[in-house]
Amino acid sequence: MQFSSELLESAVQEFSRLPGIGKKTALRLVLHLLKMDASAVQGFGETLIRMRQEIKFCQRCYNVADADICSICSNSMRKQELICVVESIREVIAIESTQQYNGTYHVLGGVISPLDGIGPDQLNIEGLVNRVQKEDVQELIFALNPNIQGDTTIYYIQKKLHGLGVKVTTIARGIAFGGELEYADEMTLARSITNRQPVESYVMNR
Amino acid sequence: MQFSSELLESAVQEFSRLPGIGKKTALRLVLHLLKMDASAVQGFGETLIRMRQEIKFCQRCYNVADADICSICSNSMRKQELICVVESIREVIAIESTQQYNGTYHVLGGVISPLDGIGPDQLNIEGLVNRVQKEDVQELIFALNPNIQGDTTIYYIQKKLHGLGVKVTTIARGIAFGGELEYADEMTLARSITNRQPVESYVMNR
Repeated sequence: MQFSSELLESAVQEFSRLPGIGKKTALRLVLHLLKMDASAVQGFGETLIRMRQEIKFCQRCYNVADADICSICSNSMRKQELICVVESIREVIAIESTQQYNGTYHVLGGVISPLDGIGPDQLNIEGLVNRVQKEDVQELIFALNPNIQGDTTIYYIQKKLHGLGVKVTTIARGIAFGGELEYADEMTLARSITNRQPVESYVMNR
Repeated sequence: MQFSSELLESAVQEFSRLPGIGKKTALRLVLHLLKMDASAVQGFGETLIRMRQEIKFCQRCYNVADADICSICSNSMRKQELICVVESIREVIAIESTQQYNGTYHVLGGVISPLDGIGPDQLNIEGLVNRVQKEDVQELIFALNPNIQGDTTIYYIQKKLHGLGVKVTTIARGIAFGGELEYADEMTLARSITNRQPVESYVMNR
């Protein structure tokens, strides 16, 4: 692309560095910014700069936070003895959006994946073991993606927690609501039969 | 979506105001910014703010410019007596990217469209007529989209220029290179037969 303005060109280049945004999309976004008020664009830029500079990670659960401790950890209305272990902030936001979970989180910052060079030392596992040892934790709920990396991570952490007397669970796997049995993969279908639930609890949960 | 950080939430909101960017995409972009260096994010924000504040529109052709006159109008290597009339900056960038055009531009800022409430007075038509009257313009090339609004605009401007002795042309319409005759619409195919060209010029242009 050929630009007659260097200001325009550098703005397009900045946008096209973001993931999933090519040159054409970047140009569309920049032309939109050009139509916006100068004050609105200033607000946009300053919000991003301020977010990156001032955002913190909770010292307890490694979730994003505006202070040293995140709003979930410092909320006394939530069950502090319940920890949901997730891979990243993304899962925290997804679970929070269900408005069904009332415990705390622990963000690992990834999963054990030797192929990608990620070992247990690069994850926030030490902090999780510390929390279980020092706090009165009753249950750990693993909400990791159902693949080898996730399963390895669960296995590793479970061994680390051996003897600490904490209940360890994982979120239910099975046929999704609205999913057709016919199109479900064999493993999911097989496991959902093995882990069948009494009808009363099913009806109650609906 | 539920966020545990207001900084994160406001950044996601700012991004999701841009066209074609929903909440999930906005979150992905913000999480990417979080992984970037603080200095890189600062550069990103400041580039956008500076672009919006300092960018100008060429006083001659209304293209985006870093100064009062854009780099195309002030380039003495380009044919100043040739004007390509386009709807927006987008078309200038598209035509410049072909590297085949060596004249100047005139950005109308839209096309006449009574349904959208856009009349001739809202477009930079007066400036174009002035250019034709005062400069030694030899040819106007209309490169507008082939629809009723574009045709109306061409008709209106042509009437305005009546008697000024300037050659008025429009870019060629026809079967696109790589296009299959079979799948071309009837109007394009009919016009491409009416406006057939001698084979010599076709071979030369290839």
